[in-house]
Amino acid sequence: MGESMAGLKRTHYCNQVKENLIGSEVVVMGWAQKRRNLGSLIFIDLRDRSGLLQVVFDENDVDGEGFKKAETLRSEFVIAVRGAVRQRESVNPNMETGYVEVLAKELRILSEAETPPFAIEENSAVKEDLRLKYRYLDLRRPDLQRNIMLRHRVTQSVRRFLDGEGFLEIETPMLAKSTPEGARDYLVPSRVHQGSFYALPQSPQTFKQLLMVSGFDRYFQIVRCFRDEDLRADRQPEFTQIDMELSFVQVNDVIDVNERLLQRVFKEAINIDIPLPIPRLTYQEAMDRFGSDKPDIRFGLELVNISDIAKDSGFKVFTDAIENGGSVRGINAKGCGNFPRKQIDSLVEVGKTYGAKGIAWIAVNEDGTLKSSFTKFLSEETVQAILKAMDAENGDLLLFCADKNSVVYDALGNLRLEVAKRLGLTKKDEYSFVWVTEFPLLEWDEEEQRFVAKHHPFTSPMDEDIELLDTDPGKVRAKAYDICLNGVEIGGGSIRIYQRDIQEKMFAALGFSKEAAYENFGFLMNAFKYGVPPHGGLAYGLDRMVMLMAQEDSIRDVIAFPKVKDASCPMTEAPGTVTEKQLEELGLKIDIKK
Amino acid sequence: MGESMAGLKRTHYCNQVKENLIGSEVVVMGWAQKRRNLGSLIFIDLRDRSGLLQVVFDENDVDGEGFKKAETLRSEFVIAVRGAVRQRESVNPNMETGYVEVLAKELRILSEAETPPFAIEENSAVKEDLRLKYRYLDLRRPDLQRNIMLRHRVTQSVRRFLDGEGFLEIETPMLAKSTPEGARDYLVPSRVHQGSFYALPQSPQTFKQLLMVSGFDRYFQIVRCFRDEDLRADRQPEFTQIDMELSFVQVNDVIDVNERLLQRVFKEAINIDIPLPIPRLTYQEAMDRFGSDKPDIRFGLELVNISDIAKDSGFKVFTDAIENGGSVRGINAKGCGNFPRKQIDSLVEVGKTYGAKGIAWIAVNEDGTLKSSFTKFLSEETVQAILKAMDAENGDLLLFCADKNSVVYDALGNLRLEVAKRLGLTKKDEYSFVWVTEFPLLEWDEEEQRFVAKHHPFTSPMDEDIELLDTDPGKVRAKAYDICLNGVEIGGGSIRIYQRDIQEKMFAALGFSKEAAYENFGFLMNAFKYGVPPHGGLAYGLDRMVMLMAQEDSIRDVIAFPKVKDASCPMTEAPGTVTEKQLEELGLKIDIKK
Repeated sequence: MGESMAGLKRTHYCNQVKENLIGSEVVVMGWAQKRRNLGSLIFIDLRDRSGLLQVVFDENDVDGEGFKKAETLRSEFVIAVRGAVRQRESVNPNMETGYVEVLAKELRILSEAETPPFAIEENSAVKEDLRLKYRYLDLRRPDLQRNIMLRHRVTQSVRRFLDGEGFLEIETPMLAKSTPEGARDYLVPSRVHQGSFYALPQSPQTFKQLLMVSGFDRYFQIVRCFRDEDLRADRQPEFTQIDMELSFVQVNDVIDVNERLLQRVFKEAINIDIPLPIPRLTYQEAMDRFGSDKPDIRFGLELVNISDIAKDSGFKVFTDAIENGGSVRGINAKGCGNFPRKQIDSLVEVGKTYGAKGIAWIAVNEDGTLKSSFTKFLSEETVQAILKAMDAENGDLLLFCADKNSVVYDALGNLRLEVAKRLGLTKKDEYSFVWVTEFPLLEWDEEEQRFVAKHHPFTSPMDEDIELLDTDPGKVRAKAYDICLNGVEIGGGSIRIYQRDIQEKMFAALGFSKEAAYENFGFLMNAFKYGVPPHGGLAYGLDRMVMLMAQEDSIRDVIAFPKVKDASCPMTEAPGTVTEKQLEELGLKIDIKK
Repeated sequence: MGESMAGLKRTHYCNQVKENLIGSEVVVMGWAQKRRNLGSLIFIDLRDRSGLLQVVFDENDVDGEGFKKAETLRSEFVIAVRGAVRQRESVNPNMETGYVEVLAKELRILSEAETPPFAIEENSAVKEDLRLKYRYLDLRRPDLQRNIMLRHRVTQSVRRFLDGEGFLEIETPMLAKSTPEGARDYLVPSRVHQGSFYALPQSPQTFKQLLMVSGFDRYFQIVRCFRDEDLRADRQPEFTQIDMELSFVQVNDVIDVNERLLQRVFKEAINIDIPLPIPRLTYQEAMDRFGSDKPDIRFGLELVNISDIAKDSGFKVFTDAIENGGSVRGINAKGCGNFPRKQIDSLVEVGKTYGAKGIAWIAVNEDGTLKSSFTKFLSEETVQAILKAMDAENGDLLLFCADKNSVVYDALGNLRLEVAKRLGLTKKDEYSFVWVTEFPLLEWDEEEQRFVAKHHPFTSPMDEDIELLDTDPGKVRAKAYDICLNGVEIGGGSIRIYQRDIQEKMFAALGFSKEAAYENFGFLMNAFKYGVPPHGGLAYGLDRMVMLMAQEDSIRDVIAFPKVKDASCPMTEAPGTVTEKQLEELGLKIDIKK
């Protein structure tokens, strides 16, 4: 049974009770973190979202039944305390309020508590299943409280900045229409139009383009998006985007405003200075140097193309790869030359995970001698040329991959990350941004045997590549850009097509007939008849961005109520069953095929 | 086809081009509003979201083909113009930029335009169907542009204020669980768990209460909510709430912070001063004086209870009503005594629409004589007593209803609004707020033959009425409050139950077994085991609030992409059909019963 708080009004949060209040009466409210009895005194650490404060009950000072009630207090009881602030006898310098305590005059037990299923403390090693089932208790832990507060600071900061830059926050529908291209939609059956369905938006892409057609000039929204895909560690069925679109802009305009946005937000939210301009790599440079279109540039270990040396090496693994249109490239794992054989083998295995048939390696011993998996097949001259090209020094480990380019990039790009991790080069408190630009417009889909859009069908080709759309679509570069932070793509966007003829060309390259294009994107295509400004935009994954800022490994740790891998919620047990009546109203029947 | 803007960068919005720029070169971009040819000159009103600017093309000044291109310009072409600002010969003082014009040096036609299906101008009388089908053009109209910008200012202002007050914006799930009580849910079928469904939230009620259990202390969110109900003029299937919840508070704390919020937002967004404190009425006062729980207090015309006089009048219509537990009340339509009989009859009809069997009336002529539908049945004394009680003066019209109270309130409350409208007392630029408090906790549902929650099942009863929960539940008043503006409920909330035993009593009063309560609200009931702070909150209907601020009659005019009555979108044609494959993946079959 909880007591009423009638007649009491909180005067301070816990961490506001400091030495300047000594002698004053305060009313504080919160959760009893723990109780200690010391002779005739009872000590409570009172917790609210601001922090901890020591409250002491002295039988001689507490009114009425207060002391008796204090004796019943257990962890997580919710209490209100009125009392006087006084200097603490034994100060606790590790506690923000460690120099004072509140001597209780009045105690009310507002809510009792059963023993929680796990302790409410930082970095608790509790299994995530249990934590998510009792998410309301998990969220009491100081690390999650900090993360959620950080997320709040980030979104407020984003809004203040964009508002100041003339962006309008405009809401777009959640009950939208299912479109082809892109991921799987979540559907919402219509009751009024039985047999018809809304789709929850994967992004407000078409709506924000229509807002540009409407002349709003600069739009943004912090908006929930939905994708019914199988979940991975950094995916949720619903996720949040910082979405924006600007009219009368080119690539540099979008990049400029976003660099200043990032600088402002990282400063305001976590006090990190981002030097501007943020470095830029073209997609091709990123692949060639880092084997990835989301390069982690906190460290070097860059890829080196040794195809020129390898092509005359006579080593069939190398020469075959090159003759088949591939390449031979390597990375120099600086200082890893003394890795035991077992570690080297495990690196080779990492390479294989990413599709490499093998990883050739040379370890340069401290005395300059070599151990290697393949130099015995090469001339001394070739070996020396490779060492030179790789900038090898004593104590280095060289790792090579020979294959078609996509495999070489993938294997070495990931090996590079693995080596960096082992060397401790991926520091979470270091923030390295990089833009990747000039992405391919299209990529070949083996399964569908047609080109698909690498970003989306509205992405503009680069002016100088437009001609190629008809002749060699795979070569066309796009006015597309991603912003990467520490090897994670946190945002991406593009300048859009605003000319109807180019949009039609694009749909043709994607294998859509003109009719199919209109059927699927009709209202956008129609809108383009009535005067469209050049426009472009960008969208950030807010969850990922905050995850990196909070230095967490999972986006679940920066979302108040996340879902787990099978898209369910252990706390609410959503999704759940519904009644026959509900289904009947929707004109639906459950029909599960084995 | 559209030219590129490469090499050009916009320097100013249209309305930034003022006299201080005379002699400077500017680059402006936007839509050609209209073209006029005057001798060898071509004039264009260029429009962007900031306003209009005159651009003039002189054959002798424009580079290259510029003049020829200018001759092809038609309404809604999108153009970029580089040119010099100069004083205008014939100034237009009605135009913000009416003292200057831009003499074009360079013209690029970025996008051509077909003739739009309706003119892009203020207050166009175009049918709403057509407007909504071409919403992207409709949104170009200055009034809608203003509304959407106002909505942006409102939400930014709300956020700044609440951030400053220590509220944390925390996102809650959209893919939630269907619960009983309340309106019909929109369902989202699960693919992973075939046969199970998520529900789109009708409000984040349970999640925000859990956030209080988690200790976040002050939460807010500007959040999309969903209700699958048949649409009325001021309803949308998806709508936006400003939602908040606070811990360790009582009614006055919630009211205090919200009064300051409203004051700040109305000042910042539309420069209206709201005097504080906002007046408060209990539910009973509101019904007795205004016949409504959302009283419009911009004007008087209050209800007067004349039951004491009527009960001895001998007039059966009156005495029967009172004997059956009802009452006789009236309103004085000041100055309407000279309404022609037809108008009075139409007022009687209005009363009948709201359930009255009849409306008795007395018109006091300018010379003090009476016309009346019923005074012939009364003694002169009684008539005089009624005139006195109603504060009747020459030229007044008195309207009476005798029935059970609910009918009397409803009929007279609505008659009051109708009279005020006819008298022009409902001025849109006058903003009168009022709190309505102490709502009944429960109301009797005739159909289900049980009590249902008037707000929701988590609303706290008033301390002094808790005993009545067991004995006379219909009499229990709640710690619930609505905020009304000009007769529209723009927000409402309550202090919540935080004691498990009272929550169980409440469910019992609603006719839930303990098991059923746990089955339906299990995770909230469980959360209440682990220490719950007293808490309460409020939610505003953002759409309605902005509608009143924009002085519009429909929330559709303050929503970028609204839906129409049947919950469809004329622009995107959502909802739409989906493929067999999509249904199969969800384990569903369409099964429409005639």
